[in-house]
Amino acid sequence: MDSREFRRRGKEMVDYIADYLDGIEGRPVYPDVEPGYLRALIPTTAPQEPETYEDIIRDIEKIIMPGVTHWHSPYFFAYFPTASSYPAMLADMLCGAIGCIGFSWGSASEATLVALLAARTKMIRQLQAASPELTQAALMEKLVAYTSDQAHSSVERAGLIGGVKIKAIPSDGNYSMRAAALREALERDKAAGLIPFFVVVTLGTTSCCSFDNLLEVGPICNQEGVWLHIDAAYAGSAFICPEFRYLLNGVEFADSFNFNPHKWLLVNFDCSAMWVKKRTDLTEAFNMDPVYLRHSHQDSGLITDYRHWQIPLGRRFRSLKMWFVFRMYGVKGLQAYIRKHVKLSHEFESLVRQDPRFEICTEVILGLVCFRLKGSNQLNETLLQRINSAKKIHLVPCRLRDKFVLRFAVCSRTVESAHVQLAWEHIRDLASSVLRAEKE
Amino acid sequence: MDSREFRRRGKEMVDYIADYLDGIEGRPVYPDVEPGYLRALIPTTAPQEPETYEDIIRDIEKIIMPGVTHWHSPYFFAYFPTASSYPAMLADMLCGAIGCIGFSWGSASEATLVALLAARTKMIRQLQAASPELTQAALMEKLVAYTSDQAHSSVERAGLIGGVKIKAIPSDGNYSMRAAALREALERDKAAGLIPFFVVVTLGTTSCCSFDNLLEVGPICNQEGVWLHIDAAYAGSAFICPEFRYLLNGVEFADSFNFNPHKWLLVNFDCSAMWVKKRTDLTEAFNMDPVYLRHSHQDSGLITDYRHWQIPLGRRFRSLKMWFVFRMYGVKGLQAYIRKHVKLSHEFESLVRQDPRFEICTEVILGLVCFRLKGSNQLNETLLQRINSAKKIHLVPCRLRDKFVLRFAVCSRTVESAHVQLAWEHIRDLASSVLRAEKE
Repeated sequence: MDSREFRRRGKEMVDYIADYLDGIEGRPVYPDVEPGYLRALIPTTAPQEPETYEDIIRDIEKIIMPGVTHWHSPYFFAYFPTASSYPAMLADMLCGAIGCIGFSWGSASEATLVALLAARTKMIRQLQAASPELTQAALMEKLVAYTSDQAHSSVERAGLIGGVKIKAIPSDGNYSMRAAALREALERDKAAGLIPFFVVVTLGTTSCCSFDNLLEVGPICNQEGVWLHIDAAYAGSAFICPEFRYLLNGVEFADSFNFNPHKWLLVNFDCSAMWVKKRTDLTEAFNMDPVYLRHSHQDSGLITDYRHWQIPLGRRFRSLKMWFVFRMYGVKGLQAYIRKHVKLSHEFESLVRQDPRFEICTEVILGLVCFRLKGSNQLNETLLQRINSAKKIHLVPCRLRDKFVLRFAVCSRTVESAHVQLAWEHIRDLASSVLRAEKE
Repeated sequence: MDSREFRRRGKEMVDYIADYLDGIEGRPVYPDVEPGYLRALIPTTAPQEPETYEDIIRDIEKIIMPGVTHWHSPYFFAYFPTASSYPAMLADMLCGAIGCIGFSWGSASEATLVALLAARTKMIRQLQAASPELTQAALMEKLVAYTSDQAHSSVERAGLIGGVKIKAIPSDGNYSMRAAALREALERDKAAGLIPFFVVVTLGTTSCCSFDNLLEVGPICNQEGVWLHIDAAYAGSAFICPEFRYLLNGVEFADSFNFNPHKWLLVNFDCSAMWVKKRTDLTEAFNMDPVYLRHSHQDSGLITDYRHWQIPLGRRFRSLKMWFVFRMYGVKGLQAYIRKHVKLSHEFESLVRQDPRFEICTEVILGLVCFRLKGSNQLNETLLQRINSAKKIHLVPCRLRDKFVLRFAVCSRTVESAHVQLAWEHIRDLASSVLRAEKE
């Protein structure tokens, strides 16, 4: 869908919304379906080829609306109000278009925290079952979680929130967590009386898109009875392409897995997807059942109460945008999108490689290129400062061991070869000027 | 704004969005403003009278856009991508209109958790400063938080996640937490060697919209050096009306305060507002500063990094919808909205009181009426079942002490006296049929 079609469809949607709200009194306020009704109405896989927008819109009334509790019907007197107004909806439309991430990005943070809390509960219960005299506090003091020294800061933060130790495992020359280093830490800590309970493997680190060695680390976690969580926030979207699927080898060892479709799968922020091998591990950590939230289906197994899977109680109807996107692009369209980005990052990589003043710092696997001027960190910090204060393009840095490195991430839905070429010329020109100034 | 105007403005917004994205390359990718630029451009208070939509739209380019980092510019190569596509935007428009809350409602849960974690960190650091030999785990074992037996389940859940004890204080005859009961629990627990650190006061409980006695409980918390958090998720919106402001007396004792504009202030879900008395109490509990998130202003005090205030790193640009709503309604419009709902709940209350078969269970203060048929819980459960299976209106129950009670919450933006009257006739008819069946 291009902007021309969006103008047309957007206006139709505005009318659909106004019609919906004008006529909401006429709809039964509470749905007349059984849990699971949806399963028979939708296919079990995303479409390979894009579908038409008309198909989707037809399905709104046929598939979605019959299952909706109309919270804005004037006959809705349950719970408390949930607000709705036209100005707020207009602002949200604009918010979706601007699509900025306030101060930072990612809700993989919450997934990591949720997994850590579930693992903590599971381990404490196991140990207390064997030794009922041990208190939760006494056990928590001994629990240790592990992650690579390249993991996202949100992993350390999850440990802080969960009140347990988090240790960083030194990564290898490719910034990957390997078996030997993990095993060494586990043995040392167990010998000291500590209790390993949780390992986070990152597939596609934020700093340099490196991959922990899942095939090595996974079996160790399983042998040790330690929860394995995979954070694939960025790289996860690429796994819809068969040629990148090898990066996921060993996923069968994981207890939980997360990636963010709102990063690289064309679903506007926020949308973070999490899988867990055994759902009761999560729900037993969070389950609370007050009367005003009870319902007749809660023990039937027919429905999944996601409020037991997460920190907040409420959630927006976010699957709607995944459904629109999967259908409008089809798996093939989404694969083409990922491939285009990866091609552009390799194009940028080869431009950098042609200039002997620069070096590529890590293997380019997906859409991120880590590069720097050969020379001091100060030189590269100055270059980055010049790039960002020119405001023509926007980059952020990372630190790899003791080196200050520039990150070129292919981001925009509309980025083309021409933009990458212009960006490179711009960087090269600024580099020339920075190097000239240094010599003087 | 009515649906007629929304049709017009929505279509204009669709064009604005398409124009914005079509022309995004032409905008500087990174803003050319200093932190704080916004302060001088916007008034210090919300407008009393509604403004025109034209005023707001004019301000988008004048006030908002100069501060935006254009994440979807093809010259944005920073961080990782954040997804954007037209189908996802269309789905989000529809999601806003449906405005349903998945499985439950409220993000006050996260505010309570964040406050509890901050209080936990603060207390542990204080105690360790005095006695450095005490471990975190040894202290956590002794920490106790308190809340009324009428508090939302999310408070107990916050304790579970935070790994600390939570105790329920018995409320009085009006379902309000009072000084005597709290003091008794504190004294008993301190005598047993425990360490009180956190109290949650609820203003407007979910079950029956009761109010804890803040003027009694507040001073105790301050004397004891215990963090006081106020959960006013629902009732908080009403405090914009001077006549309801007395319910907030004692707020000066609080360390943190939360309410949900997405409940009752016309701002679509999700939007939860939290204040904290001393910001460093929060930020010191959560602060993490990896290189890729560092920026030149972080120590200047000019900007507020909300990623240190919350569980997820990222957040949507939610203030935009508050800004639209405050301006389009004005304080007066918002007050009129609250007053209308309160008037409707009193109207329902008087209908119930006129029918001697029913009883009102708690004082009606805002938009919630708790009522029941005089008689057994079974009778009332049957009535509720009949009401909800007829699907004409939707209600949920609560349990007050040993009584099963029906909650009539005035919710919809478009609810009028006629809907309340019809709802009551419907309830009365079903009650007659239930009572008839019971006699037979």
